[in-house]
Amino acid sequence: MPITVALFAKQALAVAANPLPKPTYISWGTSGPFSVGELALDGPDHQIVKDGFDRAMSTVHELKWIPAATEAPVRQFEPFPTPTGTASRRFKRQYNATEILTSVKLHVENTRATLTHAVDESYTLEIASGSDTIEISAKTVYGALHAFTTLQQIIINDGSGNLIIEQPVSIEDAPLYPIRGVMIDSGRNFLSKKKILEQIDAMALSKLNVLHWHIVDAQSWPLYLETYEEMIEDAYSPNEVYTHECLKEIVSYAAARGIRIIPEIDMPGHASSGWKQVDRGMMACIDSWWSNDVWAYHTAVEPNPGQLDILNNKTYEVTGKVYKEVASLFPDSWFHIGGDELHINCYNFSSLVRDFFDSGKGMGDLVQYWVDHAIPNFKKQANRTLVMWEDVAISPNARASGEVPKDIVLQAWNNGLENIQNLTRDGYRVIVSSSDFMYLDCGFGGWIGNDPRYNVMVNPNKTDGSFNFNYQGPGGSWCAPYKTWQRIYDYDFTTGLSEEQKALVVGAIAPLWSEQVDDTVISSKMWPRAAALAELVWSGNRDANGNKRTTELTQRILNFREYLVANGVAAAPLMPKFCLKHPHECDFYLNQTAL
Amino acid sequence: MPITVALFAKQALAVAANPLPKPTYISWGTSGPFSVGELALDGPDHQIVKDGFDRAMSTVHELKWIPAATEAPVRQFEPFPTPTGTASRRFKRQYNATEILTSVKLHVENTRATLTHAVDESYTLEIASGSDTIEISAKTVYGALHAFTTLQQIIINDGSGNLIIEQPVSIEDAPLYPIRGVMIDSGRNFLSKKKILEQIDAMALSKLNVLHWHIVDAQSWPLYLETYEEMIEDAYSPNEVYTHECLKEIVSYAAARGIRIIPEIDMPGHASSGWKQVDRGMMACIDSWWSNDVWAYHTAVEPNPGQLDILNNKTYEVTGKVYKEVASLFPDSWFHIGGDELHINCYNFSSLVRDFFDSGKGMGDLVQYWVDHAIPNFKKQANRTLVMWEDVAISPNARASGEVPKDIVLQAWNNGLENIQNLTRDGYRVIVSSSDFMYLDCGFGGWIGNDPRYNVMVNPNKTDGSFNFNYQGPGGSWCAPYKTWQRIYDYDFTTGLSEEQKALVVGAIAPLWSEQVDDTVISSKMWPRAAALAELVWSGNRDANGNKRTTELTQRILNFREYLVANGVAAAPLMPKFCLKHPHECDFYLNQTAL
Repeated sequence: MPITVALFAKQALAVAANPLPKPTYISWGTSGPFSVGELALDGPDHQIVKDGFDRAMSTVHELKWIPAATEAPVRQFEPFPTPTGTASRRFKRQYNATEILTSVKLHVENTRATLTHAVDESYTLEIASGSDTIEISAKTVYGALHAFTTLQQIIINDGSGNLIIEQPVSIEDAPLYPIRGVMIDSGRNFLSKKKILEQIDAMALSKLNVLHWHIVDAQSWPLYLETYEEMIEDAYSPNEVYTHECLKEIVSYAAARGIRIIPEIDMPGHASSGWKQVDRGMMACIDSWWSNDVWAYHTAVEPNPGQLDILNNKTYEVTGKVYKEVASLFPDSWFHIGGDELHINCYNFSSLVRDFFDSGKGMGDLVQYWVDHAIPNFKKQANRTLVMWEDVAISPNARASGEVPKDIVLQAWNNGLENIQNLTRDGYRVIVSSSDFMYLDCGFGGWIGNDPRYNVMVNPNKTDGSFNFNYQGPGGSWCAPYKTWQRIYDYDFTTGLSEEQKALVVGAIAPLWSEQVDDTVISSKMWPRAAALAELVWSGNRDANGNKRTTELTQRILNFREYLVANGVAAAPLMPKFCLKHPHECDFYLNQTAL
Repeated sequence: MPITVALFAKQALAVAANPLPKPTYISWGTSGPFSVGELALDGPDHQIVKDGFDRAMSTVHELKWIPAATEAPVRQFEPFPTPTGTASRRFKRQYNATEILTSVKLHVENTRATLTHAVDESYTLEIASGSDTIEISAKTVYGALHAFTTLQQIIINDGSGNLIIEQPVSIEDAPLYPIRGVMIDSGRNFLSKKKILEQIDAMALSKLNVLHWHIVDAQSWPLYLETYEEMIEDAYSPNEVYTHECLKEIVSYAAARGIRIIPEIDMPGHASSGWKQVDRGMMACIDSWWSNDVWAYHTAVEPNPGQLDILNNKTYEVTGKVYKEVASLFPDSWFHIGGDELHINCYNFSSLVRDFFDSGKGMGDLVQYWVDHAIPNFKKQANRTLVMWEDVAISPNARASGEVPKDIVLQAWNNGLENIQNLTRDGYRVIVSSSDFMYLDCGFGGWIGNDPRYNVMVNPNKTDGSFNFNYQGPGGSWCAPYKTWQRIYDYDFTTGLSEEQKALVVGAIAPLWSEQVDDTVISSKMWPRAAALAELVWSGNRDANGNKRTTELTQRILNFREYLVANGVAAAPLMPKFCLKHPHECDFYLNQTAL
């Protein structure tokens, strides 16, 4: 790291551009900005690279971005209570942008590397003092794409319509984790292709590289498969279906932006729609009442109930064929087979399972049966790295009684640090999706109807002030409260892990479950919060001194939200616009080192 | 009420149309639907009526609405654990729609009644058995508009593209309260004209009649005034300004739909932007740190601080002129002058107030000074019914020490039933906006930056399970949790009031404060939840037997949400679409009389 921390801190105040995620190392010189001309790209003859560069440049020229929020020291306030005002003070860099940058020289070491797990995404970006050339170097074209994203964020409007870039600048950048993503859910409510592409646009801008697509669930099956055409009888409507053509377009749109799509077919739980059109006989409890009101009989965590019958041979024939066709539609080398929230009561509706239980076996044995039969079957259809929800290995009620293969990647969603600790201790690779930090759907109350818990007129804890359901409490959302960008960014998810365990954490994915999400709200619930995650897994949440830089992120994410909106992503506002324009006046603490 | 409850209940199941808000009385006959032809209107020659009818008919013909969610008994589920399935059962009315409805006969008793407080909004709508005519009768054109809204919701697509209407039908309808509204806030973040009109569209569809517009706040002043052109220096940008022309368009758009706009200029608190451009000398604490971190010095509930100096004569000159011009822009006979959340610490920055306090006077005396001087001054400029936030009469820290005129309408936002009880006991007319039930901006976490409270990795109450900040608690939102449609609808806000007190409750307004709201999310945060309020204040939340009908509202509001989206209002989804299609399978309790 060739720069001193002190210099870095000083320059960060003076330079208006503030790309998100913050690069691993960035240093600005002091000689000031140059104008940006029509930049010519001198680089490898590679379609992904050329398209990526064209996109970046057309965004630069269309938006002519004026940073919406820039960093500055907190202004001086009147002391309390002496009423003598002082004016606010802002840093303003002097510059004379007569020098013009005219070319981008790009070197890609290996233009043949494909988009796969742990592909090298690093890059360097350099504008030497006085040079008219932006020099970019990357190991792969995916690193080059990230360099372009950085470049388009550091080329800004000087306020008079001229595009400038601060120089000299030196960036060395690479992600902390190979898995950096968000999860969308098109099983509870349909998501249109247009809105999915919008998520991909925002992911590319924030350097996320994995779209985990929970395609189907018990409620609907929007996925057209040639193998079982009848499954889309359980799409919400003929218009709410993903055709092969549509999937191809989404997959290639993502790939062109360096984004992998990991498909999820949730099995054997969360299963009713689609499957039941193939064979109702291999389903358990699909005609049961979910029975949250009579807990002894409850068959599902949410309506509607349904699980594939683990002991029915037909299950393996059908899931195998479905897996095979889905694998053919999604070229990524990883495949998510679900595995969460199996309910024992649901299997009471299967005579096969009842007999199994009568023979002295338990739920763990049943889950082990699934692991032992389903996984080899899937591997035979298409050899992918399999991802499962952590439940199969760690759920108190429904974990496998024996061995879960260690090459399965487990996605940790429950109990925060504790489950990450336990799963990595047992040698599993882990994707972090802790609900207490990263579930973007939390805090919107409950979506279940006929719920008398809301019918409370007076705070029952008025006197002692403690939180209850309707007053400061969850209000029906099981994972309340809403996860703010600060909550997400503050998450130190490797706390307490050994170096060996840390190496097993492959990254993080923020899920946006869609019981209360469809096209109208997906972007505003996803963004800009997912950008806080993006920086967390790209360059971390700490500054060069090891202190959390959440407060430093403030102006960066406020600007980035406006940038997303300008790029057609309907991201939600985080604060009054006043706060964008008055750095840190909307902070909780005046002390900027509070966090 | 000419119908028996039993018949009503039976027919409600059979008729797919389910208008929201539910009319006060509606009865369907049994002879089945008629086709709907091009309906000719035979009614008074009145522009509002003609335009309203044309809008309703063009919506009917453009959408050809197929109810997205219809009422039906819960289906039969398999008993636990006997696995013998039964099919679901749906009511389906037989009909032979060869008869065609061809005309609407409208009688309006007083076509000259104007849109003012408590204007008669009642109407009847009748289709006699076998008649080809829809007969509507209303006291005023505003009642006629509501009739059209009902009509457009009961004309539906039979599923094959034919428009039908169930008949015979008899509706007698009138609102419970004269004030039924939502509040928008363009002071924290700007709201475009387009999005404001979208709110008005949705209000008209749900029979809300008051748009309370909190136009300005400390953060920005987007309102152009001829009197003080400099005030819009504190608009967020030259594009984020409401010109006179723009306001005229919004006001007349609303009026054509029977919607009053009550403007709010918040004074003397929540004041900085705009005012400070006129005269910084009449402002207190606008250069202070809001100081939530050093509580003894805190000057505001949120950034940025600022209050008008109550003891500075200039304040009355400026507020009077602003009031006068705003009153000229908004013809409604009500005007909201704010008055909430005055902070004593802010006034420590005023030497005039410090002297006042030194003379033995207190905050109550200061507020009384404002009441005694500002109100007569406003009345002199334009004689309006004044609305204020309840604080002036009830806030423990900042209520007036003496008399607040009883002709001021007070908006109750704090302490739920308790404040409504106390304010009506004291003889004030009250608008209900209780934050625990009706604040639509709650539950989105905090928007304040540099907040270390999120930096908690492990649930401190893991063992006892009690709720805390990051785990099941408020997560930074002072009024958490999010208010669901059930929570809003369940609110019996006149509980415990005498008949005399009940008569003082003029209605309810659901506020959507905009610290975390702008164009991208206003519609999804407002709708369809505001429609639950709309029915609450139109026909109440109880059935003919006096039982809460929250569960009955389920399918109605689910359908209405889809209807809003089809009408161009970006309302949020409440449940998976599965629940729309499977009535009551997403309920908490199978027992439909649980609430």
